[in-house]
Amino acid sequence: MDNLFRIEYDFLGEMQIENDKYYGIQTLRAKENFNITTIGINLFPNFINSLAKVKKACALTNFELGDLTETQKNAIVEACDRIISGEFHDQFIVDPIQGGAGTSTNMNANEVIANIALEILGEKKGTYNIIHPNNHVNMSQSTNDAYPTAIKITLYELIFKLQDSLKILRDAFYGKAVEFKDILKMGRTQLQDAVPMTLGQEFKTYATMIDDDILRLAKAQNTLKEVNLGATAIGTGINTKPEYQELVIKNLRLVTGTDYYMANDMIEATQDTSTFVQISGRFKSIAIKVSKICNDLRLLSSGPRAGLNEINLPPMQPGSSIMPGKVNPVMPEVVNQVAFDVIGADVTISMASEHGQLQLNVFEPIIAYKLFISINMMRRAFESLAEKCIKGITANPEICMNNVLNSATLVTSLNPILGYEKSSAVAKEALKTGKRVYDILLEQKLFTEKELEELLQPKNMVHNYDKI
Amino acid sequence: MDNLFRIEYDFLGEMQIENDKYYGIQTLRAKENFNITTIGINLFPNFINSLAKVKKACALTNFELGDLTETQKNAIVEACDRIISGEFHDQFIVDPIQGGAGTSTNMNANEVIANIALEILGEKKGTYNIIHPNNHVNMSQSTNDAYPTAIKITLYELIFKLQDSLKILRDAFYGKAVEFKDILKMGRTQLQDAVPMTLGQEFKTYATMIDDDILRLAKAQNTLKEVNLGATAIGTGINTKPEYQELVIKNLRLVTGTDYYMANDMIEATQDTSTFVQISGRFKSIAIKVSKICNDLRLLSSGPRAGLNEINLPPMQPGSSIMPGKVNPVMPEVVNQVAFDVIGADVTISMASEHGQLQLNVFEPIIAYKLFISINMMRRAFESLAEKCIKGITANPEICMNNVLNSATLVTSLNPILGYEKSSAVAKEALKTGKRVYDILLEQKLFTEKELEELLQPKNMVHNYDKI
Amino acid sequence: MDNLFRIEYDFLGEMQIENDKYYGIQTLRAKENFNITTIGINLFPNFINSLAKVKKACALTNFELGDLTETQKNAIVEACDRIISGEFHDQFIVDPIQGGAGTSTNMNANEVIANIALEILGEKKGTYNIIHPNNHVNMSQSTNDAYPTAIKITLYELIFKLQDSLKILRDAFYGKAVEFKDILKMGRTQLQDAVPMTLGQEFKTYATMIDDDILRLAKAQNTLKEVNLGATAIGTGINTKPEYQELVIKNLRLVTGTDYYMANDMIEATQDTSTFVQISGRFKSIAIKVSKICNDLRLLSSGPRAGLNEINLPPMQPGSSIMPGKVNPVMPEVVNQVAFDVIGADVTISMASEHGQLQLNVFEPIIAYKLFISINMMRRAFESLAEKCIKGITANPEICMNNVLNSATLVTSLNPILGYEKSSAVAKEALKTGKRVYDILLEQKLFTEKELEELLQPKNMVHNYDKI
Amino acid sequence: MDNLFRIEYDFLGEMQIENDKYYGIQTLRAKENFNITTIGINLFPNFINSLAKVKKACALTNFELGDLTETQKNAIVEACDRIISGEFHDQFIVDPIQGGAGTSTNMNANEVIANIALEILGEKKGTYNIIHPNNHVNMSQSTNDAYPTAIKITLYELIFKLQDSLKILRDAFYGKAVEFKDILKMGRTQLQDAVPMTLGQEFKTYATMIDDDILRLAKAQNTLKEVNLGATAIGTGINTKPEYQELVIKNLRLVTGTDYYMANDMIEATQDTSTFVQISGRFKSIAIKVSKICNDLRLLSSGPRAGLNEINLPPMQPGSSIMPGKVNPVMPEVVNQVAFDVIGADVTISMASEHGQLQLNVFEPIIAYKLFISINMMRRAFESLAEKCIKGITANPEICMNNVLNSATLVTSLNPILGYEKSSAVAKEALKTGKRVYDILLEQKLFTEKELEELLQPKNMVHNYDKI
Repeated sequence: MDNLFRIEYDFLGEMQIENDKYYGIQTLRAKENFNITTIGINLFPNFINSLAKVKKACALTNFELGDLTETQKNAIVEACDRIISGEFHDQFIVDPIQGGAGTSTNMNANEVIANIALEILGEKKGTYNIIHPNNHVNMSQSTNDAYPTAIKITLYELIFKLQDSLKILRDAFYGKAVEFKDILKMGRTQLQDAVPMTLGQEFKTYATMIDDDILRLAKAQNTLKEVNLGATAIGTGINTKPEYQELVIKNLRLVTGTDYYMANDMIEATQDTSTFVQISGRFKSIAIKVSKICNDLRLLSSGPRAGLNEINLPPMQPGSSIMPGKVNPVMPEVVNQVAFDVIGADVTISMASEHGQLQLNVFEPIIAYKLFISINMMRRAFESLAEKCIKGITANPEICMNNVLNSATLVTSLNPILGYEKSSAVAKEALKTGKRVYDILLEQKLFTEKELEELLQPKNMVHNYDKI
Repeated sequence: MDNLFRIEYDFLGEMQIENDKYYGIQTLRAKENFNITTIGINLFPNFINSLAKVKKACALTNFELGDLTETQKNAIVEACDRIISGEFHDQFIVDPIQGGAGTSTNMNANEVIANIALEILGEKKGTYNIIHPNNHVNMSQSTNDAYPTAIKITLYELIFKLQDSLKILRDAFYGKAVEFKDILKMGRTQLQDAVPMTLGQEFKTYATMIDDDILRLAKAQNTLKEVNLGATAIGTGINTKPEYQELVIKNLRLVTGTDYYMANDMIEATQDTSTFVQISGRFKSIAIKVSKICNDLRLLSSGPRAGLNEINLPPMQPGSSIMPGKVNPVMPEVVNQVAFDVIGADVTISMASEHGQLQLNVFEPIIAYKLFISINMMRRAFESLAEKCIKGITANPEICMNNVLNSATLVTSLNPILGYEKSSAVAKEALKTGKRVYDILLEQKLFTEKELEELLQPKNMVHNYDKI
Repeated sequence: MDNLFRIEYDFLGEMQIENDKYYGIQTLRAKENFNITTIGINLFPNFINSLAKVKKACALTNFELGDLTETQKNAIVEACDRIISGEFHDQFIVDPIQGGAGTSTNMNANEVIANIALEILGEKKGTYNIIHPNNHVNMSQSTNDAYPTAIKITLYELIFKLQDSLKILRDAFYGKAVEFKDILKMGRTQLQDAVPMTLGQEFKTYATMIDDDILRLAKAQNTLKEVNLGATAIGTGINTKPEYQELVIKNLRLVTGTDYYMANDMIEATQDTSTFVQISGRFKSIAIKVSKICNDLRLLSSGPRAGLNEINLPPMQPGSSIMPGKVNPVMPEVVNQVAFDVIGADVTISMASEHGQLQLNVFEPIIAYKLFISINMMRRAFESLAEKCIKGITANPEICMNNVLNSATLVTSLNPILGYEKSSAVAKEALKTGKRVYDILLEQKLFTEKELEELLQPKNMVHNYDKI
Repeated sequence: MDNLFRIEYDFLGEMQIENDKYYGIQTLRAKENFNITTIGINLFPNFINSLAKVKKACALTNFELGDLTETQKNAIVEACDRIISGEFHDQFIVDPIQGGAGTSTNMNANEVIANIALEILGEKKGTYNIIHPNNHVNMSQSTNDAYPTAIKITLYELIFKLQDSLKILRDAFYGKAVEFKDILKMGRTQLQDAVPMTLGQEFKTYATMIDDDILRLAKAQNTLKEVNLGATAIGTGINTKPEYQELVIKNLRLVTGTDYYMANDMIEATQDTSTFVQISGRFKSIAIKVSKICNDLRLLSSGPRAGLNEINLPPMQPGSSIMPGKVNPVMPEVVNQVAFDVIGADVTISMASEHGQLQLNVFEPIIAYKLFISINMMRRAFESLAEKCIKGITANPEICMNNVLNSATLVTSLNPILGYEKSSAVAKEALKTGKRVYDILLEQKLFTEKELEELLQPKNMVHNYDKI
């Protein structure tokens, strides 16, 4: 048994740990205590890496301040680097939803890093007198600064990925805007026929919406650069040397390549979670927009016969287990659902944030969990939407045009030429007979076919139709 | 390659399927289309089983109506039974968040069952002319009735498990109520000292709260018995024989052992998701209660020196990576977070339900997903809370009593004996000097120590103190 | 000045009160402290009446127990009766959103009743030694039992009104179901053409949905009968005689005509607000359903030319400040918004409930406020929807039928007669040429016009089409 | 009757209007159609003024473009100015929750302005051939641009007021931070004793939190400057002259004194409501923070005997109808409730925004309504909180200090001096005996009283304690 297990201790007692495991007793306790999602934090590799980056920055700092030996520092740094390169992620096993304000996640990192470092030094796992999870790996840190800093780094980096997916989506919409720029169609307000526009304009709108969000995301991302590393337990910097705070930020920048900076009021920064609330709000706003767009896409592609049928979404899979040949707008549908989840997550995060008490918000784990889930779902969903749906959309220009020819609002457009009296008479006739306004205009010889053809050019119906 | 892959077709084209896979082309398309959670529906084994139960009930019915041969029926039924016994769950791979109103999940089941059945018959996978996923396994069904019926069966069965966890929790609270029944303490309103009560009463309250919810859950559970199996696409029962509806319900009861019944208005039942909204509301209500209780537990155990410190939660793990010996209320904390998630999920489910359109709610997948997640998290969390926290709680009776002796409200209790004038004087004295009311009462010789001891018996301070 | 003002005192000091005001110093303090909504609780006359009913029941009980004189009792009871009959509502001025767990509302009632009673006895307002707001009107009560009891009575009574509005709505839908029972149309799933149904069935579904909710509301309403009157401060019944609890419930039943009953665990009943959460959940579920229906109505009436245009909503007002003749679905639109507000209110109520601490939930005022607002908005909105929209809906049967004749799913319906091969060929031809399926069937002489006329009877297309 | 009523017409028929009313037939129809809140839009005077400002800017522009006569322009402008100065607000009677995307609000403004203008010109109300609500007052506008522009102006201006209230609140907290800067106390994480800090730091944290939000609000406010005035119905600018858009923005800046600017993509700007979602998110974030602070205040002031009792909130009103002398934290309590309402409103707004369809979001009225309510409630609540609570807070320094002397974490602070071994021994002794750590340190002669006095100076316990 000697070879299979080692014994570790904490002030609650001892536990056996399988010898091939890099985590230690505190990770194991947490694993037993928190059995909520059945998932480990390694569902989020970026987060594991961010933890390692924080630990590396701290080790460099503690060495500079003379509190770690070079051997210790080198071993810890190498351990962190190997984690960052993708090794040992399977050792991060604690449940992302956990009590203790993230202590279990922090200790999981401390223990794994300590044992990798020990192995690097040729020592047995668990010989913590040489490299100790708390005394050395966690030196000058508290969960309350290391953990939220790692969350911020993770979000900062994941937001680039979200932006990438949004760019793909924006470009897909923009591509269609160009493709559809000459297709005249009815604009609708309140689902009622309003005034003409082009299908290109409709899709350009979606591109603009997404583009705005890419920009807004960048602003939100910047707020993540403010970190509280060095605050330790409650922001008073207890257990750190005076020079530590500035130094550790310098090293964090070095390790991450991003210009993180120290919060001005570290006590406030340690207890306030409003940055996460803001990020969640941003995510929600994106979700709302894209959901609205998906609603539109499903509406515009409804039919094919008993719907609007102005556009066709590419068929991705047979649509029904009972109605052969039915094709459904499955991609927008799945994106709608992701949006609903992100909107619900925002409520969860809001509640968690509101529940912070005094010098700490102990509910950061659920905040981080929901944010990570939301961002990951969104970036996968948006890229799928672009690739598997938007890029393959085709238009039904004759249906689009026929709606215009049909509509009383055609008269509105011709008002300046026709005069109000004539216009009204034509509109009434259309309403009474059900005929197309276009046909009435011809019948009553108010216009020739050729004149109407010219008038119905997008350029004559819509200002700046080609400003796509 | 012949041995490694088979080719399957649908109206979009063909795909290669690894030959050891039981699922087919539609599952594979769905897997490619929906990459959202990175998790498969087999995260929910009860749901897989429920799908198999529905398919079994349908096969039995189609056989009785002469639409499946005995051979086909037997093979399908055996396939279903093997799934129900836990086999083949790894073949259920589609993402729980999916477009298409659950068609992919339904087809995943149809395809896996067809291929197991074919294997049972000694046929190669994919020889669908013998047993076809749609024509035979899905016979007389649509996703729109089979899928929500399976969701309801799953929830019905999982609610028993949730109730079990609530019973464990209730009993744990009740055990403490009995244990603490003689401990007098201050009751608080608005966090301000109010009037005396016993710690037993405080814990009995929690037991009562949970007990109420077990009952309410049972009522909610019953509403799940109404199913729309037989409705097919939109509730008009298209593609079924007239006798089918009654017969399939009979067989569903047989297969499940539960008295499910046919909805009265099948068109309504197919598009309305309010039963799920109700279930979610019930879950939320439970979450809110337990979260409130956890808030209380954290408050009552705050300290040890700078807090209320009336009770001690059992230490489950070292509480801090920096402050040695600190023990935190990690179990209530994790339960709070589960509650926040359930409350957020209710918003997601509400939005999904509200977004149903015309004859179908295409967003049932997210509804089911969130309900399954919520129920599973809650039952794990509640059982953990009971086992790892409530059962190990101890009281600090002298602190509890001292709060009473300290408090001006002690005077309120003695009002009937002391008279209003005297009472007020004592209260004012306490306020002015900061002395304990108890001590003033003795000093001023208003009572002897013995008299006060008698008066301060729980039975004399609180009505029905022993009605625990 | 003597005649214009009176002076009242509390332990914080004295205040001048205008002599024609029936409320007293505590009401005035609350008015100054809580300036949130700029609205008084008299926005809710039912609530004012419920407070008076509670006070009346308590006065009767205190008299029976010998704690009020007959004169005092008679004066208080008459004061309450006059309030119930609609007098003095303008004296209830405190903001519905208030701190103090409803104490200000309770004291507003106590003070107004005391001063009316004094006037009845020919005494000056403010001569509280004769009838005191606290000592006599509030005798044997605490805000913590009187206030939530009044909330429950209010909700109980308002739910009847909500049910009335739902019945009007249900009947309006049902009326249309009968009117439209012979109109064949396309059923849609995922906004795509599915299978035929009748417009009557579509509207009957809405009637069924509402009918279910009327029933469910009745169940929820019943849970409001459990009250904690007699619990006083924290549920221990401090300051009441042992006989009081049973007696006061008896009198409450007498006064209200409803069989309210005492909670089993009064401590639990005083701190738990889950009944309100349940009621809110029920409201939300109704809101979700009606919102879904309104979405459908807006969709079905979209157009007139570039939309589905299957039904016409009655025009209620000119629809545009710029597009003459445009008529919008304003009634469904306003109901959607009410629904969104009710759904948001549910989150507010959930948070308020979750935030209860120890022996009291101090946030009952916002819970009551949001519930009152939600129920009042819904009942007005639903009645308006029925009267100003549903009852005036007309159908466009030829458009409905044309969608069926157009659709490939017509083939599905003819499958049993035509055989799968022929059916598929026709469907493909329709898809290729864009022709109506109906026309192809005639062209290819697969049916005569007369045969098709017969086949397209609702009774032949839909099972039980007349089971409206 | 001639003198009492006038008759007005629209395409639905005619209605009688009382002659002293400035609104016309469309307002009256809307009043009848929308009976939801029983409140008129004049609950929001800033909004009425903003509508008038938009109308004025448009009139100036239409005059410049030669589409209004000078007489018409002058009359309209004067009418607008009189509204802005506070007159005629009682004529704005339509319900803020309305169908029609705000058309009724817009027409209410158009009609009132037209009739005031007519009166100014000495004409009878209703002589619309001279000044017509649609043709003249609403010239070159649609509800779809005029209405959201007025909402944005309103929010822009109200945000200044919200900021004012936040500044008062911040300054109140900061004042206390200075006042309490020498009071040493226990910092708490997870409600458990953590490490020492000062009460001044605790309050400074709140000041910092609020200060951050003032800044963030300013950024959010700036996004409101982008308006779509000139977009008319769907953003294509139909019914306007090419020069109109730039000119009307110029005039809007002139009228408001704020540098509003034209949206880049007017079609997008007309349908997208994400700016409002962002504003709501900002409001929610503020609400969450202040709610957290209020939770803390209630906790820190809990007691007086059976709570933390570190601070005293000023008594604002008697706290109980049954427990004499009880004082409750009513101001934080009411602010908590406002926060819950704002958080719920954010869900309502999110749903409304997500439900926009195609070229318009018809649910802007509920969005505006909830935002106006939220901002008004918050600014009243925050100012009240500052004035009636924060400014009157006093501290209990001896209780604060005693918690430090009591606590094992005192040992942590002395670790560097005492060494780990000794520290642990003292901590254990304290735990075992229940004695104060301070007393053990003296007993064991580890320090003299004087040494401890020095060590316990805030400056020695906390870094930068005077950086307030």
